[in-house]
Amino acid sequence: MTLPVKATVFVGISLDGFLARTNHELDFLPPGGGEEHGYAAFIETVDTIVIGRKTYEKSSPFPNGRMARSPWSSSAPGLWTRRGAPGAVVERLAGSPPEVVARLAALGSKHLYVDGGITIQRFLVAGLIQRLIITRVPVLIGSGIPLFGALPHDIALQHVATRQYSSGLVQSEYIVPA
Amino acid sequence: MTLPVKATVFVGISLDGFLARTNHELDFLPPGGGEEHGYAAFIETVDTIVIGRKTYEKSSPFPNGRMARSPWSSSAPGLWTRRGAPGAVVERLAGSPPEVVARLAALGSKHLYVDGGITIQRFLVAGLIQRLIITRVPVLIGSGIPLFGALPHDIALQHVATRQYSSGLVQSEYIVPA
Repeated sequence: MTLPVKATVFVGISLDGFLARTNHELDFLPPGGGEEHGYAAFIETVDTIVIGRKTYEKSSPFPNGRMARSPWSSSAPGLWTRRGAPGAVVERLAGSPPEVVARLAALGSKHLYVDGGITIQRFLVAGLIQRLIITRVPVLIGSGIPLFGALPHDIALQHVATRQYSSGLVQSEYIVPA
Repeated sequence: MTLPVKATVFVGISLDGFLARTNHELDFLPPGGGEEHGYAAFIETVDTIVIGRKTYEKSSPFPNGRMARSPWSSSAPGLWTRRGAPGAVVERLAGSPPEVVARLAALGSKHLYVDGGITIQRFLVAGLIQRLIITRVPVLIGSGIPLFGALPHDIALQHVATRQYSSGLVQSEYIVPA
């Protein structure tokens, strides 16, 4: 199946794999998002953000303020979507990940930015993530909200490239083969 | 305190942070240890291996056979040490990580290779690891024996370098500041 919509994960995590502390705090990340590591360029390629409710509540304002400027769309318990276009609205999108993707495709979405631990994990298991861009911060925090979770089967990835930054960030990009 | 002994972790893990599957199987790693990624050069710098009992039982033969050639030393429940010198013996080393390090220092050890999930975690918490060399394999396995565990406090690391290999391995090296 060729999807008309592709979805990318773009996240910063601790070296031990956490998106946030257990209480959702992000204080272990560099202030202001840290050294520029491609977020601004990435976000320009995205027309829709699919994000869990908890991440939504914690993540505005985004480092570059873009999150705050645009409206959102949503549906489904805990699943929120924001369209990037001017005047777009936040909507709650109900349903399973395939249903959400189908709905967004019907609305004209082409490139989803999927964020938030549970949301990322659900989309990965459903085979609906095509690209992972993971930036690791050089700190161990010991516990928190993990990027990855249990899987019904292994998921083999294709490494595209890894970039390292002078502040110690290491960013690896992977494709999830169809 | 300047330790006369330094300790390094050199591990291969899945992208989601697992050293092994829950049943200790390593079948998600590339056959034979995969593309050469510095193990042979690293092991030449090591005079002593500190390894948990479970990892010991699962890890021989090591890819280059060196593990099998040399004797071991030990002490303490579940903590095994192998000296690299010809004719060295496997010993069980009893005691806490600081006690083990002190004992090995007294025996003349200069560079420890610390391996195995629980052993690595105990040495990290004790502040007895100076360097981490982590090679990630491009696969998600969902569950298993994690490299990292709970910590009483954050551990900030200093990124030294990251190397990428054509087979998709990505190796990051970190110093643990004293």
